[in-house]
Amino acid sequence: MTDETPSRFDRAFGRLRRVWQGIAGKPTTEDGAPFRFDARRVAAKIDECLAARGGEVSARTQAAELGETYLAWNERDRSEFLRLLATHYGIDRDRLRASASALASASEADVADAEAAVRRALIAPRVRLLTQFNVLPQGVKFLVDMRAEVQRSIKREPALAPLERDLKDLLASWFDVGFLELRRITWTSPAHLLEKLIAYEAVHAIGSWTDLKNRLDFDRRCYAFFHPRMPDEPIIFIEVALVQGLAGSIHALLDENAPAGDAARADTAIFYSISNAQKGLVGLDFGGFLIKRVVEQLSHDLPRLKTFATLSPIPGFRAWLEETMGAGRPVLTAAEAQTIAGAAGQSDGAAAFAALIADESWAEHPTQAEALRVPILRLGATYLTEAKSGGRARDRVANFHLSNGARVERVNWMANRSPENLKRAFGLMVNYGYDLGELESNHEGYRGEGRVAMSPAVKALLKGR
Amino acid sequence: MTDETPSRFDRAFGRLRRVWQGIAGKPTTEDGAPFRFDARRVAAKIDECLAARGGEVSARTQAAELGETYLAWNERDRSEFLRLLATHYGIDRDRLRASASALASASEADVADAEAAVRRALIAPRVRLLTQFNVLPQGVKFLVDMRAEVQRSIKREPALAPLERDLKDLLASWFDVGFLELRRITWTSPAHLLEKLIAYEAVHAIGSWTDLKNRLDFDRRCYAFFHPRMPDEPIIFIEVALVQGLAGSIHALLDENAPAGDAARADTAIFYSISNAQKGLVGLDFGGFLIKRVVEQLSHDLPRLKTFATLSPIPGFRAWLEETMGAGRPVLTAAEAQTIAGAAGQSDGAAAFAALIADESWAEHPTQAEALRVPILRLGATYLTEAKSGGRARDRVANFHLSNGARVERVNWMANRSPENLKRAFGLMVNYGYDLGELESNHEGYRGEGRVAMSPAVKALLKGR
Amino acid sequence: MTDETPSRFDRAFGRLRRVWQGIAGKPTTEDGAPFRFDARRVAAKIDECLAARGGEVSARTQAAELGETYLAWNERDRSEFLRLLATHYGIDRDRLRASASALASASEADVADAEAAVRRALIAPRVRLLTQFNVLPQGVKFLVDMRAEVQRSIKREPALAPLERDLKDLLASWFDVGFLELRRITWTSPAHLLEKLIAYEAVHAIGSWTDLKNRLDFDRRCYAFFHPRMPDEPIIFIEVALVQGLAGSIHALLDENAPAGDAARADTAIFYSISNAQKGLVGLDFGGFLIKRVVEQLSHDLPRLKTFATLSPIPGFRAWLEETMGAGRPVLTAAEAQTIAGAAGQSDGAAAFAALIADESWAEHPTQAEALRVPILRLGATYLTEAKSGGRARDRVANFHLSNGARVERVNWMANRSPENLKRAFGLMVNYGYDLGELESNHEGYRGEGRVAMSPAVKALLKGR
Amino acid sequence: MTDETPSRFDRAFGRLRRVWQGIAGKPTTEDGAPFRFDARRVAAKIDECLAARGGEVSARTQAAELGETYLAWNERDRSEFLRLLATHYGIDRDRLRASASALASASEADVADAEAAVRRALIAPRVRLLTQFNVLPQGVKFLVDMRAEVQRSIKREPALAPLERDLKDLLASWFDVGFLELRRITWTSPAHLLEKLIAYEAVHAIGSWTDLKNRLDFDRRCYAFFHPRMPDEPIIFIEVALVQGLAGSIHALLDENAPAGDAARADTAIFYSISNAQKGLVGLDFGGFLIKRVVEQLSHDLPRLKTFATLSPIPGFRAWLEETMGAGRPVLTAAEAQTIAGAAGQSDGAAAFAALIADESWAEHPTQAEALRVPILRLGATYLTEAKSGGRARDRVANFHLSNGARVERVNWMANRSPENLKRAFGLMVNYGYDLGELESNHEGYRGEGRVAMSPAVKALLKGR
Repeated sequence: MTDETPSRFDRAFGRLRRVWQGIAGKPTTEDGAPFRFDARRVAAKIDECLAARGGEVSARTQAAELGETYLAWNERDRSEFLRLLATHYGIDRDRLRASASALASASEADVADAEAAVRRALIAPRVRLLTQFNVLPQGVKFLVDMRAEVQRSIKREPALAPLERDLKDLLASWFDVGFLELRRITWTSPAHLLEKLIAYEAVHAIGSWTDLKNRLDFDRRCYAFFHPRMPDEPIIFIEVALVQGLAGSIHALLDENAPAGDAARADTAIFYSISNAQKGLVGLDFGGFLIKRVVEQLSHDLPRLKTFATLSPIPGFRAWLEETMGAGRPVLTAAEAQTIAGAAGQSDGAAAFAALIADESWAEHPTQAEALRVPILRLGATYLTEAKSGGRARDRVANFHLSNGARVERVNWMANRSPENLKRAFGLMVNYGYDLGELESNHEGYRGEGRVAMSPAVKALLKGR
Repeated sequence: MTDETPSRFDRAFGRLRRVWQGIAGKPTTEDGAPFRFDARRVAAKIDECLAARGGEVSARTQAAELGETYLAWNERDRSEFLRLLATHYGIDRDRLRASASALASASEADVADAEAAVRRALIAPRVRLLTQFNVLPQGVKFLVDMRAEVQRSIKREPALAPLERDLKDLLASWFDVGFLELRRITWTSPAHLLEKLIAYEAVHAIGSWTDLKNRLDFDRRCYAFFHPRMPDEPIIFIEVALVQGLAGSIHALLDENAPAGDAARADTAIFYSISNAQKGLVGLDFGGFLIKRVVEQLSHDLPRLKTFATLSPIPGFRAWLEETMGAGRPVLTAAEAQTIAGAAGQSDGAAAFAALIADESWAEHPTQAEALRVPILRLGATYLTEAKSGGRARDRVANFHLSNGARVERVNWMANRSPENLKRAFGLMVNYGYDLGELESNHEGYRGEGRVAMSPAVKALLKGR
Repeated sequence: MTDETPSRFDRAFGRLRRVWQGIAGKPTTEDGAPFRFDARRVAAKIDECLAARGGEVSARTQAAELGETYLAWNERDRSEFLRLLATHYGIDRDRLRASASALASASEADVADAEAAVRRALIAPRVRLLTQFNVLPQGVKFLVDMRAEVQRSIKREPALAPLERDLKDLLASWFDVGFLELRRITWTSPAHLLEKLIAYEAVHAIGSWTDLKNRLDFDRRCYAFFHPRMPDEPIIFIEVALVQGLAGSIHALLDENAPAGDAARADTAIFYSISNAQKGLVGLDFGGFLIKRVVEQLSHDLPRLKTFATLSPIPGFRAWLEETMGAGRPVLTAAEAQTIAGAAGQSDGAAAFAALIADESWAEHPTQAEALRVPILRLGATYLTEAKSGGRARDRVANFHLSNGARVERVNWMANRSPENLKRAFGLMVNYGYDLGELESNHEGYRGEGRVAMSPAVKALLKGR
Repeated sequence: MTDETPSRFDRAFGRLRRVWQGIAGKPTTEDGAPFRFDARRVAAKIDECLAARGGEVSARTQAAELGETYLAWNERDRSEFLRLLATHYGIDRDRLRASASALASASEADVADAEAAVRRALIAPRVRLLTQFNVLPQGVKFLVDMRAEVQRSIKREPALAPLERDLKDLLASWFDVGFLELRRITWTSPAHLLEKLIAYEAVHAIGSWTDLKNRLDFDRRCYAFFHPRMPDEPIIFIEVALVQGLAGSIHALLDENAPAGDAARADTAIFYSISNAQKGLVGLDFGGFLIKRVVEQLSHDLPRLKTFATLSPIPGFRAWLEETMGAGRPVLTAAEAQTIAGAAGQSDGAAAFAALIADESWAEHPTQAEALRVPILRLGATYLTEAKSGGRARDRVANFHLSNGARVERVNWMANRSPENLKRAFGLMVNYGYDLGELESNHEGYRGEGRVAMSPAVKALLKGR
């Protein structure tokens, strides 16, 4: 063994620990002494970094010190610092206006110089400091987390907006999708990485290491995008089940005791969870790229796979349905109304329907549930394919997948019986199908005319067949 | 990313899965059909492997098939196979005797040939088959596990002994300590490896992933020996706490909620657990090598470390004490007897002592506990340093460390209050000190004259000071 | 072994091979057919990429195709493409002027929107395409090489300037020094990487693999910066010799037959070569960072090292001296003139000096050489420390190191006897000393007042002592 | 970067350097002082290692010191040491005889103990020392090289034989083929490894790094077996060309200027060189395993490959032919004799033939060459398939491949025109075909009845068709 491994490990982790301590707000410096924000001293330090009198090399060293101090501050002190950056190190508006004015009236001979002057005037001095922070051992993560902090505060402090824009521009350039590496995550991955899946999973919470292991079993795949400078931090990750035929129930997939299937015989890959892991990268969209890369990867590795589809929630279904009914619009077909009336022993099917879905108790009564099955499935499909807002699907999950070029493949009854999902979607989940050959045209149709692609089965469902 | 990683992973793990399935006794072959042991067919296959008519390359392929079949058998079938190997593929005794006889009377000119003939006669045919199994993807692990199975059955089936000896000889050669690699295990190690620590820990059971993470924290070290052909299987591992001063209580070390110490300031490394991970390697001793390598490694990485010591159980203490008392030998000094008599409000200190230690309730009564403290500590030291069996320390843990050249450093009161340890050692634990400069002479003194090395503090304790 | 390694290798290299073929101008596409630039088709493809109608995912795919086509073009076709990008996909000047005008007169309420509009107007459409190229397997190298091509043509085609600026801005952001990884290069490094050292070495050409091996011997170090997305391409690299005392002759360092010294005993690290490897990164300065990182690294690894210095050429020495003499300024001290006059058997020392240095034949005559030694050393020091141009050292190598905060440590006689160096610097070389404790103040003094730091020895030399 | 990499590198290489220095006979110890063999001191050290009084851990440390001393000795001193080991640390013959005698007459009850006693008596004490050397950093390589030294001396020093046997037994166990790893070697492999290919290539010498690069080009493959404890030392390696159709000329394959072919379109893999790299492993046969593994690997990676064949020399062809002719046996068919007589303008074809092949000048005369083509090809095939020695093919290369189960596929005219090959094989080379489906039966037929497998083409050639 190499005696160095430990120390490398310790160094990296010592840093990370300080990062977490800092982010968590413990007011400790390396020697344990409390350390507080002091506007005058901090401003002097920033000025030194920006002037770079000792050369850019030493300016970076000083920026790194400032960055480590930032991590040692508590949350209030960090806020002070962000406010200082946002308000004192921005663009010089007068200089900008003057240069804009000069550009507006520049002669052809001077226009290039005038343009360059505007360009310079548009770069806030703080951008240099933000860039200098990149020499911190976890510099990229530092800036991502700084933006996450700005995001948290920006609603009550609109003055942070220019800082937020600079951070976003910087991160958008550094997190260009071309820099991201797709890596498979398995049960042989490092524990400190797997631990983050547990922390970051946003769709179906991971309850334990056993739950996690089930999601990394032989009939599963998990992929994440990583940035080369944040090798231990997933940017976004996706969980996939390899099955035979479309999966219509999340319970089977999350059952830790179910035996693993045979990946080599699977014909379908079900994407049942996709989570953004970095709050500081909000607004940078990697989901579509991730799904497409994973589809390509799986197609290559497992040529028997023919179908790629999600198993997704329909978060806005009940809200839309209640709104529709509240507006007095009929939602049932005559046949449906009649069936429900019959099942409920009432004469007014619409009223019976409204009463039934008012709470979730119907799910425990097989007869009631059976009566609801047909209309709820049809209405779910209707919601997904017809409910629009600004030309886009009203359901945000639907909008994400349709924008990626997917199609509505199948709506599934009793797919997720958790109380929460019974409440928001009457237990429904939906498969969105990703067919590489159709993605572009679907995307174009959706983006242009708002056309929603769907399978024949969904079309038939809409027609009540 | 490379699309290949997954498939390599799958292949390796698919194998392992089959291995586990096999070991676990599921009677499945690759295509799911049940497959049973058939002595005639198996013997024919073995004969083919040994004859190697199609060349050694193809003989190995056939041995691999046989090996995979073995893994698919249930436990009873595997036993049949082992019995077959043990009884039908051993040494030809008649040939051996004849060659021995020829050697005994060989002329000087013929002695070399006669010796070679004996040498050949001593190699059982099955050894070739066992070696051929090495081409299995997990061939070394296969043989290790086969020996573990033989070990399990050998008591009720003494006929397995020659097979056991051949396996041990083979593994002793392949597991020469020079082949083992020392690797540090951390929280960044693969989960499927960490999982094995949980499974194999033999001293202080690891209760959860949180418990495990605590043992891999910044102030801990964990090292294991690995064999190059079993890279995912620790052979033996050791857990170390970096502390200031000798640690005298196991509870502090195992407290998941205690904050991590500062490894860089530690002056003492406490080895608080060492576990053999492979039942199939019983009898091959790596513990001494592991401790010495870890002491060297830590000395190099953390030069502030000055003391290296264990925190070890004393499993045989109560048994010895009760035996001694049962034989009517006095165990208390006069002063001790008087103190205990006083504390118990009785006149006979020896009787009071015997009554007190009869169960573990004294541990909940501070006065009783305090009265026992001095005599129990002294008796513990006496047991460790004076109780012998065949010239060796009677306590098996003591014998292990003294053989390694360690010394009895300190006996610790209330070091492990678990009911089990109160029962077997009245709550005591002991530190064995590993001083690199003394190991050789201590070892020699112990091995030769049975001299037990001990610290001045322990000497003083023995003298009742 | 993993069967995949080969294919990964092949894929990566297949790409690279096509890249090289492309750069080398072979007009082949993947199927071998010639493929020529067609402005209309190319513009249509670019428009499609920029419109991204099928979504950004598919736009990137199309950009990648365009990029691979570019690599398949010959040089003339590639030039056409670059011209197209430079002239048709730039900023819309009218829109820019209008937005600048609006900003100049915007009310306080509108100024943020007006600023945003200018910002948008300043981004040329081609920037999006350049970014999209980043998904190519060697996307970053692609852009670096594209900028190298632009650089080659820009003198005769000034219209490429805006494209050059966009490429530089993009690369400056992506090659922020915080992203670069320092890696040591040794004789155990991959051959295809070592091959590049041979190709890129810019100071002392590497003549053979034996020469290279000597530069990677036990008493040498070689470090390079790498970008995570160009792992096989050094950005800049430096060669270091570990010696005892300052090295004053390049010949000893480059002697392949000299025995390797003992790195562990060395007290001095001599940086004898530093080469930028990527023409497409001209203008982005990494040299200072590299030297400082290497000094830190070596200090950590080899604590006996006390001195860090270069052994550098003085390229402009003769030119300056001849210029000075041509201007009629005396260059010799009286004592020097007298000595030279004596050695030459002439009365006019200045004339004799001029005659002597007119060609390099003096170097073969020990007496002549000895007569020149003192004045040439002193004049060399004078040139380095006093000859200025625009407040900076006139010698470009001196300016680089002085800007980094180094000091003139020692001027070395007969340090490089190659005809070329005799010609330009009379055989002199200079050591620049890098003392971490002084770098900042030296840099500041040099940048501010143009103060040149120097060792006491050099000061004494200047005073003729 | 990690600062540790360098030091690990240095350590490993520092060792290796000392190893090489030692092997090369430089009489230096670590501190540079000369160090000579001293039988008394060395024997004392050996005794200490074998007694292991300070424990096995410290015995290993002492063995390591002895091993490093060995490396520091010159060749003569090393020989003394080997002689000492061979003669003083062998089996105790008297004890062996006594134990053999006891075994021969042991009762059934005692036979197991008597057997164990013989077993122990058969293990020479030096075996323990040899095993202890395994803790040296390059311990396995150490023993391999020690055996190479023994091999060099054994002819003139038969007393080394028992030591040679012990070394071989030890290495045979440690180098079981199941431990060897197949690795592909490419132009991205470390230079210090590639350097060894140049050094070890035994069939077609590698003239330069350019020659080597050609052999690792896109249409080539190179594979080697490695031992996990000798990761930088190939055991045996093979060079493969991927071509279309059987390759019949070595010149095309070794032409550095020929353009690389397209591996993806190749249908044939030609093994044109296989070299054992470790003299100390002579007698352990890995060639058959290597070829089979490479065939499997290539079949998997490049499914278009249908044919696997060697391009091999026929070293014994001329010797056999001259012997045959010398014995007065006719070698030409009537038709052949007539043709040659005609071409030579002589009446006696046999005499003309003998005159023609007496030297190699015929190769420069197209008419002569053409006259020889048919008979030489037929005679080559005859030699390969019919000339036997002890039931095996007389040609040692043929015997190797036929033992592996290959068949004689095609004999090639003017396949290697080097003077050496014209001399020994009239320019012929032969393809041996490796068909996985036939290997076993071919092997069995060859081993049993000496049946030589051959292609229909070769059969036809033999029949003169």
